Amino acid sequence: MIAACTDTPGAGASRPTFSDAWRRARDYVAEQCEVAGCKVRVDACGNLHARPNAIAWDAPVWLSGSHIDSVPHGGNFDGVTGIVLPLEVLRVAKEDAKIAIPLELIIWAEEEGTTFGLGMLGSRAFVGELSASRLSELKNAQEQNYVEAGAPHGVRADAIGSQSEKLRPNAYIGLIECHIEQGPGLWNQDCSIAVVTAIAGRRQYKVSLKGQANHAGSTMMHDRRDALAGAAEVIGAMERYGRDLGNRSVVTVGQINASPNAINVINDQVVFTIDFRSPQQEVLARGDPKVRQLVEQIANNRGLELSIDETEMQLVTEMDRAVVGKIERVAKQHCPGGQIEQSTSGALHDAAILAPHVPTAMIFVASRDGISHNPGEFSRISDLALAGKVLFDAVRDRRLE
Amino acid sequence: MIAACTDTPGAGASRPTFSDAWRRARDYVAEQCEVAGCKVRVDACGNLHARPNAIAWDAPVWLSGSHIDSVPHGGNFDGVTGIVLPLEVLRVAKEDAKIAIPLELIIWAEEEGTTFGLGMLGSRAFVGELSASRLSELKNAQEQNYVEAGAPHGVRADAIGSQSEKLRPNAYIGLIECHIEQGPGLWNQDCSIAVVTAIAGRRQYKVSLKGQANHAGSTMMHDRRDALAGAAEVIGAMERYGRDLGNRSVVTVGQINASPNAINVINDQVVFTIDFRSPQQEVLARGDPKVRQLVEQIANNRGLELSIDETEMQLVTEMDRAVVGKIERVAKQHCPGGQIEQSTSGALHDAAILAPHVPTAMIFVASRDGISHNPGEFSRISDLALAGKVLFDAVRDRRLE
Repeated sequence: MIAACTDTPGAGASRPTFSDAWRRARDYVAEQCEVAGCKVRVDACGNLHARPNAIAWDAPVWLSGSHIDSVPHGGNFDGVTGIVLPLEVLRVAKEDAKIAIPLELIIWAEEEGTTFGLGMLGSRAFVGELSASRLSELKNAQEQNYVEAGAPHGVRADAIGSQSEKLRPNAYIGLIECHIEQGPGLWNQDCSIAVVTAIAGRRQYKVSLKGQANHAGSTMMHDRRDALAGAAEVIGAMERYGRDLGNRSVVTVGQINASPNAINVINDQVVFTIDFRSPQQEVLARGDPKVRQLVEQIANNRGLELSIDETEMQLVTEMDRAVVGKIERVAKQHCPGGQIEQSTSGALHDAAILAPHVPTAMIFVASRDGISHNPGEFSRISDLALAGKVLFDAVRDRRLE
Repeated sequence: MIAACTDTPGAGASRPTFSDAWRRARDYVAEQCEVAGCKVRVDACGNLHARPNAIAWDAPVWLSGSHIDSVPHGGNFDGVTGIVLPLEVLRVAKEDAKIAIPLELIIWAEEEGTTFGLGMLGSRAFVGELSASRLSELKNAQEQNYVEAGAPHGVRADAIGSQSEKLRPNAYIGLIECHIEQGPGLWNQDCSIAVVTAIAGRRQYKVSLKGQANHAGSTMMHDRRDALAGAAEVIGAMERYGRDLGNRSVVTVGQINASPNAINVINDQVVFTIDFRSPQQEVLARGDPKVRQLVEQIANNRGLELSIDETEMQLVTEMDRAVVGKIERVAKQHCPGGQIEQSTSGALHDAAILAPHVPTAMIFVASRDGISHNPGEFSRISDLALAGKVLFDAVRDRRLE
């Protein structure tokens, strides 16, 4: 049902935050939560909350959720897995529970970062990391900012940060986010699920190289200040640096825009991004000056003007030992061999934003061949069902451990 | 005066062919030719011809001209230089000559290719390369084809290709086109002018590399098939190949588009262009398999799917040795050191279209910092005057050598 909500039918999930496809998916989840006996509300930041009718909004419950927004032409499992599993838990609980299950489902708004240029906006705003004024600086491709674009979907700039609209840690026992692994680790080891013990930190940069536009036929190679050739050298250097670091550290150039971008003109300006992640904080710390130095060296050698801005810096996030322990304990009766794998997450998740405020852990589900952010994304139903059972057992009572 | 004819005053020369600005500039040149004692006519292809009243239209004379149409926000020297210099020669000749100078000035219609999507239309039609029916398929931004848009300016579809409206080689001794260099070669060597010995040939390619889209955080470096990292390696290889060839051969990647082009996704597909030019035909011939081999090797090493299509192939045009020799000979008394530099043209010009039909050469004038197709375009008055003097001496008599 959620998969059917896409701007690009037949070419993967394209659900930019606040798009029609995104809204249809959210409305579907809200309706299903109501069918499962829940009340539903959207907070001022744009996140949707649902908990059993019988439980007051400020009573302590488990929180579980993820996101429904997608990258362009993404897959059907990223984010959505973490919505349908707690939804299934709420459904099952309604069918056979004598008391209401202490679980709140949440859909975080704008996790991917592809719509407004920064990820996890809903969760960051909810914990107080982002103000309404900062959110109104972030624009989508239609030049609407987050607050404007989100207004028809419940975002209320004036209420963001107010007591009733932000995180009240006492209302939550802990957070468990279910997510596909988005890497081939579990799939290749033939494991179904894992408990996540840490989420990699991330530094993101926006780099601009400026040279000189000129005629591609009459400007000799040694007379050029070709911004694209400079960017290409940086991309190569970043790839080598990521390979040299190893140990689950990665460096990616994902976005690149050249100007004037014409077949017979040397490019004047190229703007591109660098995404650098590691599960070890010291690698991220050492890496920042190293990345800058590599880029500066190339720009200097080529006589290109350089600007490099860090657009994001996210520390490595350790998961809560108690929640990890509870997941491991309840998993015993479900997992083959009575044991759940441990893993670290290379990708960032809303769980990383909540972790400093609420005891947090994650459950990973194996991704076929590690493919993600791609229509080929796939996880086995049996693995998803196993994650759902573990989640159910973890959140059916109010004990943290 | 011509510089004042622009659709974008204060933001460079914008004279699309058949625009008001273009027509005002052409009318100005026609008027000045008449003042200089010339008769003026527009041929059925839209090119303006002017030669001294005393000389019949079919008597053999030198031909010299260029274009007044410009790229959007172009400079004041590209094309116009090749009009004002023969105009000045006609003026000076009228003032002090006892006999009429054997020179015809020509304004070729639509050289740049930015108005109708293909360059050098006036000269191609004049030599018989383009028919009226082909010209009526080429449309401008207003969806008017060349024949319709040109009708108010003298284009007559029914007469294109007829004996009186196309090139009669016997009516011309030779062609000398003066043009700014559009590269920094002369400027950097502190040279004023050069004689062009060849116009570079060009091969253009469209390349597509296809890898696998995946999450930038959770896909380890050795598990990636990153199309952008592959394209970057190709760009580096093309730059090195161009440098290694030297000798005025150039290789440029000007256009690049990555998909999905998002900060946190490994790119699945990158499409880019390669523009490869050389003034030596054997370099272009040898280069084709070499370019393909370099790209294939990189694609294979990275497990990327490759498609590479040649989108254009233009042979090298050698300039006429006799005309080059005459320019070198007459230049002796004007050039410092008694010698004129030799150069090759990386850019294409109307001269390349005429060269197979009429003995042809070009005179280049130094461009400040090589800047062209840009309002910053500039050439020194003293360099322009020197080119004018050499042109004058080359065309004052009917001897080819």
